[in-house]
Amino acid sequence: MANLKIPVGVLGATGMVGQQYITLLNDHPWFEVRYLAASPRSAGKKYTEAVAGRWHLIKTYAPHVGELMVYDASDINSAVAAFKKGECSFVFSAVEMNSKDETKALEEAYAAAGIPVISNDSAHRWTPDVPMLIAEVNHEHTDIIPIQKKARGWDRGFIAVKPNCSIQSYMKPVHALAQAGYPAQRIIVSTMQAVSGAGYPGVPSLDMIDNLVPYIGGEEEKTEKEPLKIFGAIDNGIIKNVEKPLISAHCNRVPVTDGHSACVSLEFAGKKPASMEEIKAIWAAYKGLPQEADLPFAPKQPIIYREENNRPQPRKDRDADKAMAVSIGRLRPCNVFDIRFFALSHNTVRGAAGGGILNAELLKHKGYIT
Amino acid sequence: MANLKIPVGVLGATGMVGQQYITLLNDHPWFEVRYLAASPRSAGKKYTEAVAGRWHLIKTYAPHVGELMVYDASDINSAVAAFKKGECSFVFSAVEMNSKDETKALEEAYAAAGIPVISNDSAHRWTPDVPMLIAEVNHEHTDIIPIQKKARGWDRGFIAVKPNCSIQSYMKPVHALAQAGYPAQRIIVSTMQAVSGAGYPGVPSLDMIDNLVPYIGGEEEKTEKEPLKIFGAIDNGIIKNVEKPLISAHCNRVPVTDGHSACVSLEFAGKKPASMEEIKAIWAAYKGLPQEADLPFAPKQPIIYREENNRPQPRKDRDADKAMAVSIGRLRPCNVFDIRFFALSHNTVRGAAGGGILNAELLKHKGYIT
Amino acid sequence: MANLKIPVGVLGATGMVGQQYITLLNDHPWFEVRYLAASPRSAGKKYTEAVAGRWHLIKTYAPHVGELMVYDASDINSAVAAFKKGECSFVFSAVEMNSKDETKALEEAYAAAGIPVISNDSAHRWTPDVPMLIAEVNHEHTDIIPIQKKARGWDRGFIAVKPNCSIQSYMKPVHALAQAGYPAQRIIVSTMQAVSGAGYPGVPSLDMIDNLVPYIGGEEEKTEKEPLKIFGAIDNGIIKNVEKPLISAHCNRVPVTDGHSACVSLEFAGKKPASMEEIKAIWAAYKGLPQEADLPFAPKQPIIYREENNRPQPRKDRDADKAMAVSIGRLRPCNVFDIRFFALSHNTVRGAAGGGILNAELLKHKGYIT
Amino acid sequence: MANLKIPVGVLGATGMVGQQYITLLNDHPWFEVRYLAASPRSAGKKYTEAVAGRWHLIKTYAPHVGELMVYDASDINSAVAAFKKGECSFVFSAVEMNSKDETKALEEAYAAAGIPVISNDSAHRWTPDVPMLIAEVNHEHTDIIPIQKKARGWDRGFIAVKPNCSIQSYMKPVHALAQAGYPAQRIIVSTMQAVSGAGYPGVPSLDMIDNLVPYIGGEEEKTEKEPLKIFGAIDNGIIKNVEKPLISAHCNRVPVTDGHSACVSLEFAGKKPASMEEIKAIWAAYKGLPQEADLPFAPKQPIIYREENNRPQPRKDRDADKAMAVSIGRLRPCNVFDIRFFALSHNTVRGAAGGGILNAELLKHKGYIT
Repeated sequence: MANLKIPVGVLGATGMVGQQYITLLNDHPWFEVRYLAASPRSAGKKYTEAVAGRWHLIKTYAPHVGELMVYDASDINSAVAAFKKGECSFVFSAVEMNSKDETKALEEAYAAAGIPVISNDSAHRWTPDVPMLIAEVNHEHTDIIPIQKKARGWDRGFIAVKPNCSIQSYMKPVHALAQAGYPAQRIIVSTMQAVSGAGYPGVPSLDMIDNLVPYIGGEEEKTEKEPLKIFGAIDNGIIKNVEKPLISAHCNRVPVTDGHSACVSLEFAGKKPASMEEIKAIWAAYKGLPQEADLPFAPKQPIIYREENNRPQPRKDRDADKAMAVSIGRLRPCNVFDIRFFALSHNTVRGAAGGGILNAELLKHKGYIT
Repeated sequence: MANLKIPVGVLGATGMVGQQYITLLNDHPWFEVRYLAASPRSAGKKYTEAVAGRWHLIKTYAPHVGELMVYDASDINSAVAAFKKGECSFVFSAVEMNSKDETKALEEAYAAAGIPVISNDSAHRWTPDVPMLIAEVNHEHTDIIPIQKKARGWDRGFIAVKPNCSIQSYMKPVHALAQAGYPAQRIIVSTMQAVSGAGYPGVPSLDMIDNLVPYIGGEEEKTEKEPLKIFGAIDNGIIKNVEKPLISAHCNRVPVTDGHSACVSLEFAGKKPASMEEIKAIWAAYKGLPQEADLPFAPKQPIIYREENNRPQPRKDRDADKAMAVSIGRLRPCNVFDIRFFALSHNTVRGAAGGGILNAELLKHKGYIT
Repeated sequence: MANLKIPVGVLGATGMVGQQYITLLNDHPWFEVRYLAASPRSAGKKYTEAVAGRWHLIKTYAPHVGELMVYDASDINSAVAAFKKGECSFVFSAVEMNSKDETKALEEAYAAAGIPVISNDSAHRWTPDVPMLIAEVNHEHTDIIPIQKKARGWDRGFIAVKPNCSIQSYMKPVHALAQAGYPAQRIIVSTMQAVSGAGYPGVPSLDMIDNLVPYIGGEEEKTEKEPLKIFGAIDNGIIKNVEKPLISAHCNRVPVTDGHSACVSLEFAGKKPASMEEIKAIWAAYKGLPQEADLPFAPKQPIIYREENNRPQPRKDRDADKAMAVSIGRLRPCNVFDIRFFALSHNTVRGAAGGGILNAELLKHKGYIT
Repeated sequence: MANLKIPVGVLGATGMVGQQYITLLNDHPWFEVRYLAASPRSAGKKYTEAVAGRWHLIKTYAPHVGELMVYDASDINSAVAAFKKGECSFVFSAVEMNSKDETKALEEAYAAAGIPVISNDSAHRWTPDVPMLIAEVNHEHTDIIPIQKKARGWDRGFIAVKPNCSIQSYMKPVHALAQAGYPAQRIIVSTMQAVSGAGYPGVPSLDMIDNLVPYIGGEEEKTEKEPLKIFGAIDNGIIKNVEKPLISAHCNRVPVTDGHSACVSLEFAGKKPASMEEIKAIWAAYKGLPQEADLPFAPKQPIIYREENNRPQPRKDRDADKAMAVSIGRLRPCNVFDIRFFALSHNTVRGAAGGGILNAELLKHKGYIT
């Protein structure tokens, strides 16, 4: 019997996020990596050669992927040819271009050529008709896709993106509370972010031994603004941002390999939950479409609350439920706002490639990719 | 010529804070360690034997200290005898008793016996007639000492304490603003605290490799409440706490040896500074009595502002100005409150033994110790 | 249908190695944890209560184990009762007694009571009729068990132990070469050992941030002597040690959570391999009884050779093949001896509980446990 | 009165070793930095601008250095002009060229122009008439300088270099033993080297959190061969290498900021010391010309032996005696060779810029630089 999995391409296949995509897609029940593209430097090589000496993950790629030829990501024709041969139904984009404008243009070119793009890049996050998806939180934003296609004259292709890794740990808890009738008005958050978020070679070890760095370029702005689009609604052909919650972020780099942490103080906009126990019950009951549809990468329990007072911790909890769940702890009243808590999520899985794969599963479930 | 330095005792001389006191007092221009006391286990030994295999600092003690006999800290008579022999004019207390009540009682016994106690312990921080001093911030609180002595019938002895290490990095910046007419109303702070704060053996390495711990027992309460006494005023024979600023703290342990960091968001109570530049100018101009009196351990510049966007950092900046200055960076408007910034201070020097020594210098300057 | 797995007890069930045993035995195809014993402090509690706040592993225990009552490990009668009820066919011993003599006596008491003991402890490693097993290297030493039983008048019980974690990474490569006709004469080895080897709390973080410690108590002696028994032969009712290879060890503690590394320089006793390629071929072909019998915990490839010049590395390679394989790299001629190489194995899995489980599988395979 | 210090230039002034030179020369009693050169990118800028955002040391440069103009290191004329103005009597070379041949040529050009070059680079280490100096070990090799000058037709200029940082910790102990009549025949050494050895950005933090790397390119070769020149003698116009000791090195990168460690097993060539105590006495008595001449950067005690069984340690001992002493511990008989011990030295001070400065002091003492 022929291979019935949907053939997938990975753009930026040799980079760290590309490697993560390829590894996480080993044995995926729906998708199979069949097309790879990267920079001209890698083009024309077998994948196993292209990543020789540059493989930075603990897990490795499937043998058949090692044998694939790497194409030049800017060569759309190759991708179209692969599509026609049934080797590339859609692409995960983890390209690293010189500018955001180049990335935008490249992703649009794939979409225009009929190949849907599920992107990790920040280039199209603020394009008003491009959905920025956290599958449990705003799956309704996929409704913008037909509008996007129509406006741009694309038939099969489209672009969908995911937000920054720094916000993943607390967006679901905040969303769960909002859904239960307790939207947030103001949030002050300090993050302690893992070095893998900066890729490889990324953060020098001289900065991370007996040290931390109180700055990550561009991260605070993303942390503050992206939730406003995610919590927004489709209105008149675009996704219209909300104005609340107002967020203030302090983003720090700490000596942790994987797992972004956040210390969150939150003020509710109106009604307040009766107790900490009510909030924990809301989080425990929280499910989204990924759980209802039983998507392969969906964590069974999207929000795991830990009662120990010193948990979650990055090394012990980042891998919870395939590294796709967020772990929360230390919920307590805030002296200044209403509540405070500590949140953790795996930045390169839930916050990057794993989140992208879950988005692709969502889009397949809804019929946008086939 | 005879030794004209004031002879000093150290209680808890073998512990980590005791070691720090002894090391920092090497070559002190005013004080000389002449009396040591610790647990019964160490009593009767020469100091060099008592700390053999238990010395955890990089610097070492002065040769004459190694030759001193260690006494039992609970044996007040030995201390009194040393006082009479001119070997112990006052003591730094870094005892580690089984309970706060025992510590309280012990420190009171020394004071009652005529020996002033400058303590690092938290036991007496909330005793209403005991000053909790940060020398630049509330030196006026030493005015409680005559009241304390009189109320308790002590002639020469008294007790003065210092606050917790976690608040040192941002108390001076907040005080500087208050002095300039911009008191804070609300503060949300996340700390990233060094492992030396937990002593030795302290935090297990299995918790600090590729990890952080979002909890330090008792630390958040201290961080939130101690400033209210420090900013208070003497009223009717006690130090009366203020009610503002309201503080909410998230305290985390991170893999850093020395140097507590804090991410601070602050809302002013009334009038706001005109600009970030005005705030920096206030901080640059900030001086206290330690600077005016040119006390030996006073940092020349109590608040060092760094313009680089990724500084201060613990490893690079904790030792600024004998590890007695606080370093601040990343001052910027807060999306939610008025301003936010990052603050760093050395927890075992400025935040512990060095701060205690500066307090002793202040008390000598004012004539309370002789 | 009744549970057909062999019921297993764990002595020292609440300690770090005990936790590791219990976790690794989740879903074991042959064995099931049904009996737990620990110190009197834990006795009488459900396991889930006994380890509350003391669970230090990333993985957790099976739900049914959490419900088990913990017994006092020194209470042999409880174990015998459990044996009679079909709940404890043999025990893994990870007890932490005050002295090696106590451990010896306790393990002998279990064996005398008819309960085989597979021990992690060093107490019986030098008992001449107790086999010290690395399943691939010296499985023939199990032939001492009938002799041991007879000499001591035990019918069903016996004691078998495993060697120290520090030697696991290079014993198999050295054994493979000896089997191929190239026994070693002299070895100089420097180890860089993970902090998990010291248990929890174990190594203080102040010793492991920006630091390493060039000493681990007792480790060098074990590293040098244990191979001499493992390479020995049964002779006249005891395991007689060999005299070669002569080993000199430098054991260091480094800031790594799991995975012991070794830098090995080796001189052959007689004939030398023709080339580095011949050695790699020997290692690649190396299999032992665990592989032939397809034991559940046996790594498929006991020795994994990595061609990259900067591998293996602890974080990337310690988990190879269920953390049961050793990884080798950098084989090259030695300027002083014949060859040198770098070796890595997972100290708490292959080097501790996983190695113990593999030994139990071997003993079941041979009919010693049922 | 005019400045009577010798004016010094630093080539590669903006790099990490260059920064280290400049910082260590703050307040040097003999030398003053007056001339700076670096890559064309920095040329024409004030030093303070050239290093803005690129300053990686804890200490900072002297104010007058910040005001110096940076020249292009390949522009020899500028250096000559500075020499004529009395601003550059000799240079420390820490250039980072594209190839060793370029570095060689550049350093020769300075020497030919009359400017002595004290180099950190490896380019000229194997040039037979260039001395590779460890000031305590082979100061007699400076006798090659007149030969070097004559052969090349240089009048005032010459080149002297220092060896690799990896060998610093054990060369002096080995030399001390040789001087006392106990030369080494064979050495097997495993190093654990700090990340600062790779400069900045250098080693990625993803490789150094919960990890180590068993390979440093080119390091083992240098470690094995450089001692053979250092222990050599001038013979017929060149420095002739010795053949012994034969050295085999395993070089590892570990998560330590500063301080290279070495585990050394050593076999004597002939006569052996009577006891470990004799060896310690030899090390304690060891002095070289730097100590006899009381050179400013000379450690008072070049070899510090620590009796504690877990010392030296990088964080605690690297800074011993201005970070210029080596610290040794754990001397004990070797099971395979004669003795073994653990050695530590500060790689960027003793092993790089500090060692270079000490060499310059030696050369001034001998009249080669004025």
